[in-house]
Amino acid sequence: MAEIEWKPQKNSTVSLHQQITAYMKTKIQHGEWTIGMKLPSQRNLAKQFQVNRSTIVAVLEELAADGLMEAKVGSGTKIINNTWGLLAATPPPDWISYVKSGIHQPNISIIQEINKAEANPHMIRLGTGELSPELLPKGRMEETFQFNEKQSLSLGYTEPKGSFALRQTVSAYLSKKGIIASSESILIVSGGLQALQLLSIGLLKRGSTIFHETPSYLNSIHVFQSAGMHLLGLPLDEEGVTFDTIGRLKKQHKAGLLYTIPNFHNPTGIVMSERRRKDLIAVSQMEKIPIIEDDVYGDLWLDIPPPKPLKAHDFQGNVLYIGSMSKSLSPGLRIGWIVGPEAVIGHLADIKMQTDYGSSTLSQFAVEKWLSKGWYEEFLINIRDELRHRRDFTNELLKKYFSDIATWTLPKGGFYIWLKLKLSISSQRLFSLALKDGILINPGIVYDKTDDQHLRLSYSYASFDELERGLIALAQIIKREARRRFY
Amino acid sequence: MAEIEWKPQKNSTVSLHQQITAYMKTKIQHGEWTIGMKLPSQRNLAKQFQVNRSTIVAVLEELAADGLMEAKVGSGTKIINNTWGLLAATPPPDWISYVKSGIHQPNISIIQEINKAEANPHMIRLGTGELSPELLPKGRMEETFQFNEKQSLSLGYTEPKGSFALRQTVSAYLSKKGIIASSESILIVSGGLQALQLLSIGLLKRGSTIFHETPSYLNSIHVFQSAGMHLLGLPLDEEGVTFDTIGRLKKQHKAGLLYTIPNFHNPTGIVMSERRRKDLIAVSQMEKIPIIEDDVYGDLWLDIPPPKPLKAHDFQGNVLYIGSMSKSLSPGLRIGWIVGPEAVIGHLADIKMQTDYGSSTLSQFAVEKWLSKGWYEEFLINIRDELRHRRDFTNELLKKYFSDIATWTLPKGGFYIWLKLKLSISSQRLFSLALKDGILINPGIVYDKTDDQHLRLSYSYASFDELERGLIALAQIIKREARRRFY
Repeated sequence: MAEIEWKPQKNSTVSLHQQITAYMKTKIQHGEWTIGMKLPSQRNLAKQFQVNRSTIVAVLEELAADGLMEAKVGSGTKIINNTWGLLAATPPPDWISYVKSGIHQPNISIIQEINKAEANPHMIRLGTGELSPELLPKGRMEETFQFNEKQSLSLGYTEPKGSFALRQTVSAYLSKKGIIASSESILIVSGGLQALQLLSIGLLKRGSTIFHETPSYLNSIHVFQSAGMHLLGLPLDEEGVTFDTIGRLKKQHKAGLLYTIPNFHNPTGIVMSERRRKDLIAVSQMEKIPIIEDDVYGDLWLDIPPPKPLKAHDFQGNVLYIGSMSKSLSPGLRIGWIVGPEAVIGHLADIKMQTDYGSSTLSQFAVEKWLSKGWYEEFLINIRDELRHRRDFTNELLKKYFSDIATWTLPKGGFYIWLKLKLSISSQRLFSLALKDGILINPGIVYDKTDDQHLRLSYSYASFDELERGLIALAQIIKREARRRFY
Repeated sequence: MAEIEWKPQKNSTVSLHQQITAYMKTKIQHGEWTIGMKLPSQRNLAKQFQVNRSTIVAVLEELAADGLMEAKVGSGTKIINNTWGLLAATPPPDWISYVKSGIHQPNISIIQEINKAEANPHMIRLGTGELSPELLPKGRMEETFQFNEKQSLSLGYTEPKGSFALRQTVSAYLSKKGIIASSESILIVSGGLQALQLLSIGLLKRGSTIFHETPSYLNSIHVFQSAGMHLLGLPLDEEGVTFDTIGRLKKQHKAGLLYTIPNFHNPTGIVMSERRRKDLIAVSQMEKIPIIEDDVYGDLWLDIPPPKPLKAHDFQGNVLYIGSMSKSLSPGLRIGWIVGPEAVIGHLADIKMQTDYGSSTLSQFAVEKWLSKGWYEEFLINIRDELRHRRDFTNELLKKYFSDIATWTLPKGGFYIWLKLKLSISSQRLFSLALKDGILINPGIVYDKTDDQHLRLSYSYASFDELERGLIALAQIIKREARRRFY
């Protein structure tokens, strides 16, 4: 489907009709719009170009008359030729079939819809799991690149594991969490998702099973499935993931790894208790199931620090630990790390070199400076205050507007409130209804296919005003929908 | 195999023996060195720690007496236990077998050796295909991050296709090459290699065949093979890739795409003629074989600009065009792009989002500024001068020292001289001999498994002094080897 970032000029001597026709012809003539591609609906085109629908109708009729497009009732307008195509003996390659042949699966459709809706600046984003733009440290990030004589930027490729200076700094930062890891056992990656991507293609056979919490962030992405792995959910209680059945399950399935987010779990916000952590490490050793510990929210505690990471209890190299700056400093940096046994880290570094030749040295430089100068620690103090305000503000709104329609537990850190609807309204339907009203929520079904009764709310992104307007409107939508279903 | 970045302190009150023993014990105790891992040889350890071999022998004996290691004649020293392991009932997970199970193939062994040798700052690098650190624009890159009130850094995630501002700037930059592509049909990626990685997993069925020039850069990486594709080489002549047989080959194989580097081909330096370009486009249309045009060297012409890219002749969307800042500005930026039909670009953007959530915004910001302010164009003028001097200097050295032992063609741009040895000396053997003398070369066999008679020399990386010393030494090695074989 075509995406349109261009708009016609309203006060031009060239008519809107002519501008749009020329735009579309150029797209077709230069092969950006290929034969077989479907155009958006007339209504949608009118909206994107900010013109009347009648203008669009006229443009499409002209292009159809030229033999470039064909409109069919029910299936919309398609590109059927290009000017060269009319002369040439053979049609161009069928890109659509190429796209469908790819190994990697496309994003799940709700996630694609969310990604798309996020491009609209007027959307109230109640589900977005990232720091609000106003919370990002622009000023100091600019200061980061002021140099004195001693420092300077390195602009070449870095070593396979990433910048040595950054790995040493990460090593020192991790030691404060009780994780003893030297520079050699740390791999710098472009964020937590790339860590998972490398693990999926670097460590496991096709057909392996990944155990995870239910619900789980892992269900919202396709990274392991695209590499031919299966996901298998384990129940979650208020102390974290449970694993009574893991011995039996391991025998039934080709067990690969257990993936867990012990701190401020995505989407439930649950913190794994210290006791559960120790038990999990013991089970992991006994059953020989390695663990991926995803700790990207660990620094975002709001009340008290969480227990030590699983990795701090791991003396046999059973745990691969993932950290990142995306949630707690700035997502645009695209910097994270994997910590684990050297045999694993060396191998993953080799694969990373084959994937993208390493992460941006500008970003690596910035994170090294933020960690070594103590700026990150300072920033965290401030960001915890901000997130605490937002969490408490959101909680008050929920108490006021959602008490009769939903239940939730106040999270002790991270970004998320896992809202359980009391009435059996489909979260997926709510997503569509809210979207129409300009409100973006993450339906629970994204994190657990069998659970359509939760919403993942985030208090990290929307402004206070948006949180208030959005939540009031959302409560109204839910109540309206409940009444509709009742009668 | 363990990698060691730490060194004991020479002037400490703790003996070297004690320091190294403590270091190794910590590595083992915290699971960085796992059971089954092999240690480097005693000689190698002594070198890495910068101590006498007798110190290493004593340390290893002590650790063996503790039950942590085992030395076997012929197969070296292995970790056999850890202190917790001695107590625990069960051994840790067998990471080595996990590493071997991964889907993605490890780098080919010569490339791994090259990567490793590059960490040694005393190595003379005659094969490295990147700009010398002294040629990278440190000063102005620092200036890039000086802000005025109007600009500011964006630190959030970018849109799936990458920063809109950068895509618009790239669109304008491409139009000067005759490529008409709007922002919607451009995807920002983390360098040219990631472009290939995304194409390999996003567009092709397992078992598809990728046609390419012989020799080819593609043979030095595993990106398509790891995704289950086959490579099939086509002959190269002085006008570029030849394709008389492609119709027949296409019938015999599950044809996917044709990959080509028309400008300053890696490794041969050949420029595809204008006539050949037009023919290739025609064949691509006729046989319906899409083309990947890798143009990462295109801006590095030294005498006259090369003919227009294939993409500029492509009006049916047959060509996917790859550009990058890695070769012509700075590799550490990790910024490149793919240009193609929107249906393809949108799909690849979706997969990129699932791989790493986009490229560093710091890097995207920097490239946008360099392109829009004209700094890149200015830099190119300067870098062409520098590379021209280096090429001509290298050519003079070759004439002086290699005339009787090799032939070559002076390249018109890019980094590489494809040196053909007159005597039948294995390039692979030369690689090993040169490595021992501290000289790093890229043997031809890396680019064509059946061709062991070429070397890829690069004049872009080593200093003038290193080029001179390195080439003189290399000529001596070759002549010595030739004499050895003769008698």
